[in-house]
Amino acid sequence: MPAVWLRANCPCGTCRDPGSGQRLVTITGLPAGVTVAGVRVSGAGVEVVFGPDGHRAVFDPDWLTRYGTGAAPGGQEDGRTEDAKRLWAAADLGGELPQGWWPRYLADPAHRRACLSAVLSHGLVVLHDVPCEPGAVLAVARSLGYVRETNYGRLFEVRAEPNPANLALSRLPIAPHTDNPYRDPVPTVQLLHCLRGAAGGGESTFADGFRAAAVLRSQDLAAFACLSTTPVTFAYSDEATELSATGPMIGLDPRGRIRQIRFNERSLAPARLPAAQAQAFYAAYRALAERVSSQEATVTATLSPGDCVIFDNTRILHGRAGFTDSRGGGRRHLQGCYADLDGLASAVAVLARRHPGQPGPGGQAGRAGS
Amino acid sequence: MPAVWLRANCPCGTCRDPGSGQRLVTITGLPAGVTVAGVRVSGAGVEVVFGPDGHRAVFDPDWLTRYGTGAAPGGQEDGRTEDAKRLWAAADLGGELPQGWWPRYLADPAHRRACLSAVLSHGLVVLHDVPCEPGAVLAVARSLGYVRETNYGRLFEVRAEPNPANLALSRLPIAPHTDNPYRDPVPTVQLLHCLRGAAGGGESTFADGFRAAAVLRSQDLAAFACLSTTPVTFAYSDEATELSATGPMIGLDPRGRIRQIRFNERSLAPARLPAAQAQAFYAAYRALAERVSSQEATVTATLSPGDCVIFDNTRILHGRAGFTDSRGGGRRHLQGCYADLDGLASAVAVLARRHPGQPGPGGQAGRAGS
Repeated sequence: MPAVWLRANCPCGTCRDPGSGQRLVTITGLPAGVTVAGVRVSGAGVEVVFGPDGHRAVFDPDWLTRYGTGAAPGGQEDGRTEDAKRLWAAADLGGELPQGWWPRYLADPAHRRACLSAVLSHGLVVLHDVPCEPGAVLAVARSLGYVRETNYGRLFEVRAEPNPANLALSRLPIAPHTDNPYRDPVPTVQLLHCLRGAAGGGESTFADGFRAAAVLRSQDLAAFACLSTTPVTFAYSDEATELSATGPMIGLDPRGRIRQIRFNERSLAPARLPAAQAQAFYAAYRALAERVSSQEATVTATLSPGDCVIFDNTRILHGRAGFTDSRGGGRRHLQGCYADLDGLASAVAVLARRHPGQPGPGGQAGRAGS
Repeated sequence: MPAVWLRANCPCGTCRDPGSGQRLVTITGLPAGVTVAGVRVSGAGVEVVFGPDGHRAVFDPDWLTRYGTGAAPGGQEDGRTEDAKRLWAAADLGGELPQGWWPRYLADPAHRRACLSAVLSHGLVVLHDVPCEPGAVLAVARSLGYVRETNYGRLFEVRAEPNPANLALSRLPIAPHTDNPYRDPVPTVQLLHCLRGAAGGGESTFADGFRAAAVLRSQDLAAFACLSTTPVTFAYSDEATELSATGPMIGLDPRGRIRQIRFNERSLAPARLPAAQAQAFYAAYRALAERVSSQEATVTATLSPGDCVIFDNTRILHGRAGFTDSRGGGRRHLQGCYADLDGLASAVAVLARRHPGQPGPGGQAGRAGS
C-alpha cells in the first residue's frame, strides 16, 4: 500500500485518540510527500518510519494482513448491496417467511441475532407471539434500533377508514410496493404487527426486489439500465404534508450493484421525460412490475394476531389482497412503524461480539417447528 | 407524450382514488399495447379515448401543459442536488450565516418559511433567541419535522467529558466534517443549540461541501471522478454500538449531479483499494479536504447562548476551534439533535401554500438588523 495510506492509518496515540479510537490527524495535516523511510519487524509489530518528518508507527501484523491487502471486495463494506444478500424466489423460502418467536427472541440472544440476521440476509422475518396489545410494535422496533417518526406518527394504524388519505387505509388490494419512496431518507425498516385478522382476504405478500431487479438485468439489460439511470419522482400530499423524493427505481452503488429499490405505483408522479425516453421508461417499468408481482417471486402469508413482520424497505416489496371486515365488529387491524437498517445491523454486530461465528442451528430463524 | 404515459396518468375515478389522489391502476393492469384512439377538446378539457379497451380520460389542459411537455429539468424534482442549491463561498454570505429569530419564527409563518428555505437553498440558518433551556433544541426540531433518534439519544450533549467516546466530547479542535457518515440513512439535518459559550475559543465553522466538490470538479476532474466513484467505509463503535456505512465521499445522482457529501476524517475506515487506486484516492481526498477547509470556503461564527444552528448534514461541513472552559464552572455546552430534510421541505411546501411566491423581504432570513 502507498505510504500515505499507512500514515493515515497510524495507530499511535498522536494519530488516534486512545479512548475513542477516532482519528486525530487530518489528511491536510500530514506531509504532502509522505514516504516510507524504513521498515523493521520487531516483537511489537511492524515498525515503520515515515519521511520527511520521521514519524514512527507500529502496526499489528494481523491488522496489516486484514486491511493492507488491497482490494477486498465486500470485505469491509456495510452489507447493503446485492453482493451481501441472499436473493430469493418464493420457492427458495419454501413458500414461507423466515420466522422467530418473540418470547424466545427476548430470552435468547442467539435467536434474536438469527432473526435480525434474516432481515439483513433475506430482507425479512416474521416474529410470532408478539403480545396483541396496541403499541407492542414499538417495543419490537426498540429491540432492533430506533423508531423513525414521520407525519404518520411514531406508530400508524392500518385498518379500513371511511375516507382514507392513503389507500392502505381502505379494504382495497394493494399491489407490491416499497413504503414512502416520496421520502428521503426513506425509512429503511418497516414493521407490521397484526392485532386482528380480516374476516376474509387480506393476505400479505412479499417479494425480493433485489432479485426482481437482478432477474431483469439478466433478461433485459436495457430495461435495467433505464430504471437504474432514470430519476423519477414520488409524491404524497395531504392537508399537513407535502413530500416528494427523486431517485431511480433501481438504485445502484458507484460500482453498479443493486442497493435500493423504490417502487410504489400509487405515489409515482408523472414522469417528465422526452417522449422516446418516456416510452422506454414505461416499458422498463412494466418489465420490473411483472417481475416483482410474479407468482414465482411472491410469498403469501396470512398474518395471525400476534405476528409482527420486520422487513427491509429498501429491498422487499410488500402488498396485500383486498379484504372484508366482519359485520360483528371484527376488523382487520395492523399497527406499523418504521425504523432503520443501520441500527438493526449495529444490534446484530453487537450480539455477534458475544457469540462470534454464524448464527447456529439453535438460534436459527427457521420454518415452523424448527 | 406516448399513449402509455397519458393512460398511466389518467385522472378518472377508476384510475385514481378521488379521496387520496393515489393511483389505483398498476402498470401491469393496463393493456400492453395501449394506444390513443381519439382526442377531442371539449369544455371539460382534453378528452382522450384509448385503445384497445376504449377507456376514456379527460385531462385538464393546464396539467397537460405542466407535465406533458417532456423534459423539464429540475421542474418536478425534490431539490436535493446541486442544481437546486445556491452554492456559496464565505464572501457570498458576507462572512456570516443566514439568520432568523425564534420568537418571530414562531409568530410569523413568512419568517419561518424564509428561515427554513435558507436551509434548502444555502444549507443552513442560525436562529437567535431560542430559550437557553435544556431540551429547547427538540422544540426547534419539532417545528421543522421529526427528531431522528440514534444511539446518541433523541438529544445529545456537546461538552467536554473526561474520557470521551467521541472527540466531539473533548476540548480539541474538530476539523470540518459531516456528522455520522457511518450511518445509513445518515441524519440529513443537524441542529446545534448553544446553552453556554466557552471561556476561550470554540468558534464554529461552516463550509458548503457542494461548492467545494463543484470547485474540485472544475479544477481537478480526475480527483472529483475518483471521489464520486470510490465507495469508502466510515465506522464507529463503542460498547453498545457498531455502525458502518459505505458510500463515496461525493455522492452523485444518476445524472451526475452532486447530491450528498460524506466527509469525516475521524471515522474514515482504512480504504481497501489496490495500491495505485489508493494513491489516487488519497490525493483526491487531500484535494477535497483542502477545499472544504480553505479560508475562502469557511464561515466562522461564535455561537452565543440561545443560538441554534440548523444545517443540511448532506451538504454542509461543520467544525470547531479548540476551546478552554473557565475554572469557575463555566463550561461550553451545546445540545444537538438530528432531523431530516424531507420533513423540513414538507414544512416549507405547506407554508408556501398559504403564502405563495418567493419569501418576501418581510419574511427574509437575513443578516443582523435586516
